[in-house]
Amino acid sequence: MAETVPTYWDYLKVDQLLDLQGGLDDDESQLLPDELHFIVVHQTLELWFKLVLSELRLARDHLAAPEVPEEQIPHVVHHLGRIIEILKLAVAQFDVVETLTPRDFLAFRDKLSPASGFQSFQLRELEILMGLEEAQRVKLGKVTAMDYLRDLAGRSKGGANAWAHIDKARNETTLLAALGKWLYRTPIQGSVPGDPGDTEAVDAFCTEYLASWQQVADGQLARMIEIGAAPEEGLRARFKATSDGAHAFLGALDIDEENRAHTRRIRAAILFVECYRELPLLAWPRTLLDTAAELEERMVLFRHRHARMVERIIGRRVGTGGSSGVDYLDKTGQYRVFQDLWSVRTIFLQSDELPPLQNPAFYGFAQ
Amino acid sequence: MAETVPTYWDYLKVDQLLDLQGGLDDDESQLLPDELHFIVVHQTLELWFKLVLSELRLARDHLAAPEVPEEQIPHVVHHLGRIIEILKLAVAQFDVVETLTPRDFLAFRDKLSPASGFQSFQLRELEILMGLEEAQRVKLGKVTAMDYLRDLAGRSKGGANAWAHIDKARNETTLLAALGKWLYRTPIQGSVPGDPGDTEAVDAFCTEYLASWQQVADGQLARMIEIGAAPEEGLRARFKATSDGAHAFLGALDIDEENRAHTRRIRAAILFVECYRELPLLAWPRTLLDTAAELEERMVLFRHRHARMVERIIGRRVGTGGSSGVDYLDKTGQYRVFQDLWSVRTIFLQSDELPPLQNPAFYGFAQ
Amino acid sequence: MAETVPTYWDYLKVDQLLDLQGGLDDDESQLLPDELHFIVVHQTLELWFKLVLSELRLARDHLAAPEVPEEQIPHVVHHLGRIIEILKLAVAQFDVVETLTPRDFLAFRDKLSPASGFQSFQLRELEILMGLEEAQRVKLGKVTAMDYLRDLAGRSKGGANAWAHIDKARNETTLLAALGKWLYRTPIQGSVPGDPGDTEAVDAFCTEYLASWQQVADGQLARMIEIGAAPEEGLRARFKATSDGAHAFLGALDIDEENRAHTRRIRAAILFVECYRELPLLAWPRTLLDTAAELEERMVLFRHRHARMVERIIGRRVGTGGSSGVDYLDKTGQYRVFQDLWSVRTIFLQSDELPPLQNPAFYGFAQ
Amino acid sequence: MAETVPTYWDYLKVDQLLDLQGGLDDDESQLLPDELHFIVVHQTLELWFKLVLSELRLARDHLAAPEVPEEQIPHVVHHLGRIIEILKLAVAQFDVVETLTPRDFLAFRDKLSPASGFQSFQLRELEILMGLEEAQRVKLGKVTAMDYLRDLAGRSKGGANAWAHIDKARNETTLLAALGKWLYRTPIQGSVPGDPGDTEAVDAFCTEYLASWQQVADGQLARMIEIGAAPEEGLRARFKATSDGAHAFLGALDIDEENRAHTRRIRAAILFVECYRELPLLAWPRTLLDTAAELEERMVLFRHRHARMVERIIGRRVGTGGSSGVDYLDKTGQYRVFQDLWSVRTIFLQSDELPPLQNPAFYGFAQ
Repeated sequence: MAETVPTYWDYLKVDQLLDLQGGLDDDESQLLPDELHFIVVHQTLELWFKLVLSELRLARDHLAAPEVPEEQIPHVVHHLGRIIEILKLAVAQFDVVETLTPRDFLAFRDKLSPASGFQSFQLRELEILMGLEEAQRVKLGKVTAMDYLRDLAGRSKGGANAWAHIDKARNETTLLAALGKWLYRTPIQGSVPGDPGDTEAVDAFCTEYLASWQQVADGQLARMIEIGAAPEEGLRARFKATSDGAHAFLGALDIDEENRAHTRRIRAAILFVECYRELPLLAWPRTLLDTAAELEERMVLFRHRHARMVERIIGRRVGTGGSSGVDYLDKTGQYRVFQDLWSVRTIFLQSDELPPLQNPAFYGFAQ
Repeated sequence: MAETVPTYWDYLKVDQLLDLQGGLDDDESQLLPDELHFIVVHQTLELWFKLVLSELRLARDHLAAPEVPEEQIPHVVHHLGRIIEILKLAVAQFDVVETLTPRDFLAFRDKLSPASGFQSFQLRELEILMGLEEAQRVKLGKVTAMDYLRDLAGRSKGGANAWAHIDKARNETTLLAALGKWLYRTPIQGSVPGDPGDTEAVDAFCTEYLASWQQVADGQLARMIEIGAAPEEGLRARFKATSDGAHAFLGALDIDEENRAHTRRIRAAILFVECYRELPLLAWPRTLLDTAAELEERMVLFRHRHARMVERIIGRRVGTGGSSGVDYLDKTGQYRVFQDLWSVRTIFLQSDELPPLQNPAFYGFAQ
Repeated sequence: MAETVPTYWDYLKVDQLLDLQGGLDDDESQLLPDELHFIVVHQTLELWFKLVLSELRLARDHLAAPEVPEEQIPHVVHHLGRIIEILKLAVAQFDVVETLTPRDFLAFRDKLSPASGFQSFQLRELEILMGLEEAQRVKLGKVTAMDYLRDLAGRSKGGANAWAHIDKARNETTLLAALGKWLYRTPIQGSVPGDPGDTEAVDAFCTEYLASWQQVADGQLARMIEIGAAPEEGLRARFKATSDGAHAFLGALDIDEENRAHTRRIRAAILFVECYRELPLLAWPRTLLDTAAELEERMVLFRHRHARMVERIIGRRVGTGGSSGVDYLDKTGQYRVFQDLWSVRTIFLQSDELPPLQNPAFYGFAQ
Repeated sequence: MAETVPTYWDYLKVDQLLDLQGGLDDDESQLLPDELHFIVVHQTLELWFKLVLSELRLARDHLAAPEVPEEQIPHVVHHLGRIIEILKLAVAQFDVVETLTPRDFLAFRDKLSPASGFQSFQLRELEILMGLEEAQRVKLGKVTAMDYLRDLAGRSKGGANAWAHIDKARNETTLLAALGKWLYRTPIQGSVPGDPGDTEAVDAFCTEYLASWQQVADGQLARMIEIGAAPEEGLRARFKATSDGAHAFLGALDIDEENRAHTRRIRAAILFVECYRELPLLAWPRTLLDTAAELEERMVLFRHRHARMVERIIGRRVGTGGSSGVDYLDKTGQYRVFQDLWSVRTIFLQSDELPPLQNPAFYGFAQ
């Protein structure tokens, strides 16, 4: 009896795993058929969330290091890329979820109340670790998901455990913060923070960039006026607003003075990396920024697909947690963590419109 | 030379098809590489839309007939099912679209201006044929998509042609209307419109149903108060609001008096079909209603995926048609054509809570 | 402390679930990062398999009943439809799996040896319950998956447990058998087994059908000869072979005499249901047959996708279980359980070529 | 009337595009409803193929250049990545295709005969440009797809045109060849072809690598014997065979002497790139090789999915082109163009088992 030989079932704890579908009474024979469906659907999702959290922390750890060797960037891309694939799968999973009909769900809905997906603490951890701030959260009724779980923390052992997960996450560096830290040190026109004249180099890049951008915008405006695309006054107003927005963004005018220079350098870096993305030193960083944007996009798609599933199954009825579920879920689809990555897209320029690159050799390979 | 033998290329017009990617100058050699991508992405979408419109009209024609043989319902399900599969594919297609980077798009974006997806008249036709009303449309800037195209109609031959497509669609019976017509004639408790006592039979069904529903809701409320799921006052208020909503829905109180009885019978029919969905005569109608709900769901998912793609590629920048594209697209994600199908979900009951069925033999097979 | 209120985490056993990723040493802190990925990927798959097995047994139970009320058929379609959605998801899951690079897998591959996916007993249960026979199984090296697990049964407690699952499945009615039982009783031209003259009615249907089929085939042959689609001799030979095949199939000439009449009636039933699929009594049975065919198709697609993932990650290297994995997996892609459903497709006819229907009223609704 | 303003419909030739679905009679009103489906399904596929061919040629052109600047590699990855996304979509498209039922297809199948997907010359071009050799092609009946089209070339103008496409492709550099050319020049341990001692450097790398590999394999064998994973004799034989295979692969013993050194350097390069994939100079090349492998994988998945669709719709019946379609399609699923990329996976080693890297500075960034 060679029990010491590794087996598939020992490694994966298959027996224990397949023994966790007993529901509230710990008795699988008492489940309704669709209840097994309901349980498996949620358990697989929680398993994926666990993996997502692990990958997110690995990515964060790389970026949060005091120094990030360039060779690490493909690893960060790899971790975020895996999360993206998991989120795509999680979206696809809702097609399975929806094989539960509204009326079949009613057969066990009441007995679960007030249990609710609102209690999935791993999803909250994920949001927190991404960098979603408490102030950004929308309310369901009178409370945010955080208020709700904070309240549960004192009401049961499970609630305390859930909050412990969340509280741990709240004290960690977020991916957003780690990304900012790393971006801040990006060499811009060959200059890094601490270099003499770094502020001037960054300013010069921004100024030149905005000048070039303005020239392009002026050309577009002239053309749209010429072809009569819309009434001139409206066009001028809109272009003026966009121009003001571009200056405000790169000037970080929305940020308090204390942090403005920091944010400014980060935003300039995002722009610089994208502008000269073909340079060997910037090719992976640029891929990372694009991957981070896709990560957020997939998160939004997940939220929206989730909302549609809820609407499909319960309509606009009060949710099991006592929520007006669908509207709340749709509102969370407005969350954006990597806001600068979305804003910067509005001021991109084509390659031949870019300010000239300084110090190209700085960004090349050894040879 | 046996040219009369059918060939793949003659049947599919392969040569002509592959000759339509010349862009504005009708010269493929002048295209930027990503421009071929951009063109193919849109041309395939337009081809799918053409097929969707064809299937939608076939489904509509079945349902709009003065009498709809029961054997036709699986056909209607089939047509709508095909549209669902196409919309799923159209959603997946955005993953291909997004291989266009924001800056690569800039290389040809300006030369296309003010051409815009806002000019895809087939998408408008689709919305109209589904049953979206002009009053429901959101505005982009100061105009709806319809105002915009109506204006273009007088400005070029292409615009006139686009509007002709739309105008034709506006004069057709919508899927929503055809569905209503067919639903109106649903036998409820064995009674059909025109039968003596039909109004009373429908009223009795609704009254019994609401009584049963109220009993269930009262039980839920009592339980939630007992376990302290939320403050009692708030719970009572919310349940009261839901109850009022249920009565208003089945009483069609939101509909003007002239049409109230008609809408009321349609809503009762939707509910009846779902309640007794296992009856042979109702099994396909119930599948049809669920398929119609999924059709709308997939349409919403398409709109939302579209918005994400635009946000990914152009951020919040002014669109090629001079629009604040992303916000507008997100707002169209709020459109719901089959509103009753979504509302009715909030008052479903489990099988053992339903009013007793009258005339079961009416709904059975011949044997 | 209201611990008796149902919670998400208690219902789903979230804590226990998230505590099963410790690997062979039951110590998650010792895992390599990609190992968590590897474990979650397999655990989610096993959870889905559990659900698939449950749905398969529910579908089977409906069909295996001595009498199957027509109202049950949509339920069977629903259960198989859910399995189809799960298999689609399982196929999509391989995109997540493949974020594991070949060399990252090597980091923990050896320590798992000889554990292997070959030990996933739920996949074997699934094959058995579908109706795959032991004689159909291909060998990996010198043994089939069944030989392999039978051997393990005596070598450890886990092996005994695995075999117990399999042995239980082997003693159950398969979906194939249950489907056959139900199909056997299909009314053909209004006649059911036990009716006087049932054999003659079935024979007459088959004879008329084959005559019609032959006429169509003759016309096709004549046309292909006329247009010179291929050398005449070859065409004639191929059409002759197809014709012989059609007669052999409907005559069940491949079946031993004892069971021939039984198989013959089943095959005639499959054909009859498809031919007159618009009849109310046959619309759901026809949907069921099509769903069963899709179920098998999705199973084959799952096997192929699995094989590609293995090829992508380990190339043609010896597998962890000591197998030449990819070739074996590709061979299992040849398994077909519902063979008659695939064969019958080759002799379908258009509606206007069908033999006239007898007793149409038999297949209608009550009214 | 400002017709000179760019419009969506002019740019995309929407009217002409939507006018190509008239079938053989150029009369859309004569089409059967499912025929529009059939036409759109194939036309979209041909549009995607056109884009795939364009992207493939762009990728090939980069790699086939006498010198390939490192900055170009991300572009090649981008082109192949787009093809991958298109192939994923093409796989998903079969779910739409399969909404055509077998019997609905029969309604227009005969009139198309002998037209066949076998005449899709773009798919042939794609295979050729990837690098599939004529000798590798399987036969359908007595002819390969190439023989078949070569024969059609002389029989009609369309046939001549189809062959012209193919013939052009046959005279181009294939992606496989371009990849080989580029790989051949990979610096191995800092040495490039033409460097004094390059052959010796490559030989030394291979020798060291194989020694390390043998040591690992010996350890694995010992362990498997120890735990009794399989009978010792069989294990030894299998490990011996694998070892012989590893030496034959890196020694290019399967290649004629004239080309052996060339192939040997290519294979060593593939291995070297993967081994030291973290080096800045190799990170993109490694991504490229993995992308090429995925490209082939997606191609195989497309072929398999295609075969399943054909089986689902026509069973094992003779195809419209007079073929035994499904078997043929399944056989083409065995094609592998990038054979070395699949073989090399069987001899990968973990990082800590690799031979020491020479000249690391050679592979770094400028700083």
